[in-house]
Amino acid sequence: MSMPPVAIGILTVSDRASQGVYRDEGGPAIAAWLGRALTTRWHAVTRVIPDDQATIEATLIDLADVAGCALIVTTGGTGPAPRDVTPEATAAVCAKMMPGFGELMRLESLKVVPTAILSRQTAGIRGGSLIVNLPGKPSAIADCLTAVMPAIPYCIELIGGPILDTDPAVCKAFRPKAK
Amino acid sequence: MSMPPVAIGILTVSDRASQGVYRDEGGPAIAAWLGRALTTRWHAVTRVIPDDQATIEATLIDLADVAGCALIVTTGGTGPAPRDVTPEATAAVCAKMMPGFGELMRLESLKVVPTAILSRQTAGIRGGSLIVNLPGKPSAIADCLTAVMPAIPYCIELIGGPILDTDPAVCKAFRPKAK
Amino acid sequence: MSMPPVAIGILTVSDRASQGVYRDEGGPAIAAWLGRALTTRWHAVTRVIPDDQATIEATLIDLADVAGCALIVTTGGTGPAPRDVTPEATAAVCAKMMPGFGELMRLESLKVVPTAILSRQTAGIRGGSLIVNLPGKPSAIADCLTAVMPAIPYCIELIGGPILDTDPAVCKAFRPKAK
Repeated sequence: MSMPPVAIGILTVSDRASQGVYRDEGGPAIAAWLGRALTTRWHAVTRVIPDDQATIEATLIDLADVAGCALIVTTGGTGPAPRDVTPEATAAVCAKMMPGFGELMRLESLKVVPTAILSRQTAGIRGGSLIVNLPGKPSAIADCLTAVMPAIPYCIELIGGPILDTDPAVCKAFRPKAK
Repeated sequence: MSMPPVAIGILTVSDRASQGVYRDEGGPAIAAWLGRALTTRWHAVTRVIPDDQATIEATLIDLADVAGCALIVTTGGTGPAPRDVTPEATAAVCAKMMPGFGELMRLESLKVVPTAILSRQTAGIRGGSLIVNLPGKPSAIADCLTAVMPAIPYCIELIGGPILDTDPAVCKAFRPKAK
Repeated sequence: MSMPPVAIGILTVSDRASQGVYRDEGGPAIAAWLGRALTTRWHAVTRVIPDDQATIEATLIDLADVAGCALIVTTGGTGPAPRDVTPEATAAVCAKMMPGFGELMRLESLKVVPTAILSRQTAGIRGGSLIVNLPGKPSAIADCLTAVMPAIPYCIELIGGPILDTDPAVCKAFRPKAK
């Protein structure tokens, strides 16, 4: 009997994309990157919602607790503008914050643009789910996933989740030796 | 009709400078740096106050909500000593924190002194105001402003504030292309 | 009359080490490193406790307030697993957080392993005590102490503690000139 595919949540947070004012590009960019990087069978649980903190929190909870996503990645809503509240929503639903994700993603983005410090991206753990905020811009999404994905499979194992195997040509997942 | 000059708050937090025990050097160093960097017309709203958290909070609120400062920079009170409470006061009055500012300023200062990790500098948004903590020492102020200022004009635009133009010989303001 | 030796708390947080399932290696690694680095007379106050947040908090309070430790270093409990709560316990007992310590330790560890971003290490001040979280793995402990120790003696002086002198061949303590 084979394992069921791993559920991965892809959450686009954008007033305009959720209203159809423009097409969501962040979500598809994440799905395409993960499609190249992961060799384990997985399926995307995608959502496109407005920049409303209560809606983001409810959707993250649903993706984690009901859809059973081991990994949930968000795109959008991490800047300084009044409607940007994805990091606040993430912190509100997580038991544990992972500051190293945001630090590394900002460092990587700083190599490209000095406005990287305006990103408030973070990551955290809710039960058996790792939630990671990514930027809104597709090219920045790939840079950030390339930076943090090597640590994600081991993180998911530490919180009791499934094994995620990767194509080392795209992403070398790292697992420290047991001590 | 020309625009009114942009109000920028320069807040020196120091028990001794506020008592006249020594002359405030941080505030004038900030004003001089901004004078070289900004080509937009601006005027400084300066304050020198003791390291008292309630006083710092009240002064930040006044600079943001009454004086209408688009940018407020503080100097002093960011270390580990018992009277150093500028970051706590900043967090208390901001709706949104910007962790990337502190991370980048500590990274830059680490190139100069290993004690840079003792700085607890942060930044945050209150309404239409960006508040940024700078160190107390004049030479470190210039290093930190040089590091973060390229992102500040775009940040202020994202929170609904005025356009700040800079002299690219001192500071290249960066604005990402609209997506 | 000579000064009494400086008390330094070394707190191992590990369910298995505290139950004797395996031998504590983190605590002795810290003691050995400090033994090489410090030339001031000091003595270790060591504890080995399970990953229980209330127990960690009570032990940190005891080491700071009763044993009078100027420096308390912890090892273990900083990852994403459900039982990893050392950073939360540290934050709960500190009046002031020092984000630069965790940032620098993660940066240093990132040079060795990409999973360094999974470490949630932090540091903070409780009264006259500096509390610093270190990783669980002995080799990573040395890397992190090497990175942050140059700033620790000055930090302890700023919070009213004793002078810690170091062997510059192991660790160059840095003290900025008075302004």
